[in-house]
Amino acid sequence: MKINVHYSNQHLDELYFTGKTTVVIDILRASTVIVTALANGAKEVIPVSTVDFAMKVSGNAFSGQTLLCGERNTKKIEGFVLGNSPLEFSHEVVNGKSIIHYTTNGSKAVVKAKFSENLFVACFHNLPAVAKHLVELNKDVEILCAGSNGNFNLEDTVCAGKLVSEILFLKEDAEIGDAGRAAMILLKTLGKNLLKMMKETEHGKLLIENGFSADLKVCSEYGITNIIPYFISGALKKLDVPGIHSETIASKDGEKS
Amino acid sequence: MKINVHYSNQHLDELYFTGKTTVVIDILRASTVIVTALANGAKEVIPVSTVDFAMKVSGNAFSGQTLLCGERNTKKIEGFVLGNSPLEFSHEVVNGKSIIHYTTNGSKAVVKAKFSENLFVACFHNLPAVAKHLVELNKDVEILCAGSNGNFNLEDTVCAGKLVSEILFLKEDAEIGDAGRAAMILLKTLGKNLLKMMKETEHGKLLIENGFSADLKVCSEYGITNIIPYFISGALKKLDVPGIHSETIASKDGEKS
Repeated sequence: MKINVHYSNQHLDELYFTGKTTVVIDILRASTVIVTALANGAKEVIPVSTVDFAMKVSGNAFSGQTLLCGERNTKKIEGFVLGNSPLEFSHEVVNGKSIIHYTTNGSKAVVKAKFSENLFVACFHNLPAVAKHLVELNKDVEILCAGSNGNFNLEDTVCAGKLVSEILFLKEDAEIGDAGRAAMILLKTLGKNLLKMMKETEHGKLLIENGFSADLKVCSEYGITNIIPYFISGALKKLDVPGIHSETIASKDGEKS
Repeated sequence: MKINVHYSNQHLDELYFTGKTTVVIDILRASTVIVTALANGAKEVIPVSTVDFAMKVSGNAFSGQTLLCGERNTKKIEGFVLGNSPLEFSHEVVNGKSIIHYTTNGSKAVVKAKFSENLFVACFHNLPAVAKHLVELNKDVEILCAGSNGNFNLEDTVCAGKLVSEILFLKEDAEIGDAGRAAMILLKTLGKNLLKMMKETEHGKLLIENGFSADLKVCSEYGITNIIPYFISGALKKLDVPGIHSETIASKDGEKS
């Protein structure tokens, strides 16, 4: 089992992912939103890589059953129902709905990796469950940080480091390369207090400036759900495998999916 | 003064660099070779991004005055005079010559950044001199790690971390982002023994496997020259500025440029 970590995705071709097992991470905030939406009863999350395509998918669907959501440079897009704050994706709002999701980095990373044989989404909320499932699958893994506009960011990398670390805890002989080693070093230095770490990153500071400081607290919650988003037929749905119970261990408002 | 660190270059457009001050790092081994060649009296190093173009440039030049050099996946290319080991670029071999230089990552990174207003090459050999010169210039800096085929590598990042650290030592208020912070954390953890660090990286291991372990020792030598390669009219030449003396402080064989 070999673990390859990528700090961004713009240099990778879509075909790179063909046949691979991939985990997409965009801690602030797309992957946290996707996990939260599914945990709170959303039927599916449809990631799109352009606003035009989001509008097109939305127009083709029954409006009562779909929610057009997402952000551009942290802010809700005009005409969209929801932005990209996990706090917006409550049970009351998303239960039973198809979420059409456009974001600056995260949804594009999922779309980029769409040819993967297995494509999952991870954040701190479901990280232990994802690690356990990957070790059970026992296949080489591509950990794909969404990054920030093609560049490295610290929060995704520290999360990747935690995922590598959890996999190695369960499977000592998993192989890692330079990027995985570096991510684990960054985790060791910055991972003791996830909220503090996120407050000090470039993207964390930008979110605080734009009034989303409460999101950082939500995004730093660790191991609160076993839900693993799995990409199938163009949408992210709850993974249903033996041993993985798609339920929220302890969510903010006590909702169970 | 803001310092932006990039762990690879494939996601960046050539035009990104227009008007910028850029430093290219490819520790194993292109940037070390470029500095060594100029330190040992080469007239210039002409970086090329394809083998075809290397052949074309070579064909147009007087063969006695040019040397076709470089590697593909660590090995010398058939028909080339030299490979990409700094040990090959002695005073005897390169003095007065134009070096046409093709490598898997480093020369491509230089060519990618060719529209920069100021374009320098750094390795551990000339790092203190480069840091000093950048602080004197007092412009925003792009530190461009060549990386490995578009991916992150540890040795370039640790070198970038050292460059950031030296700049901050000379100019405390220089701004850094996530990538610069991460590079400094990696430097702190791995930078105490540069040779050991390089032996444990993916590329370091590959070089050892292919018989180039002596190169790692050469590439880990720190602060042995003040020579700064500067890109002008398609070639890297010795920078000639007041306060920077283009000389080798202590080279392996005692040669002075």
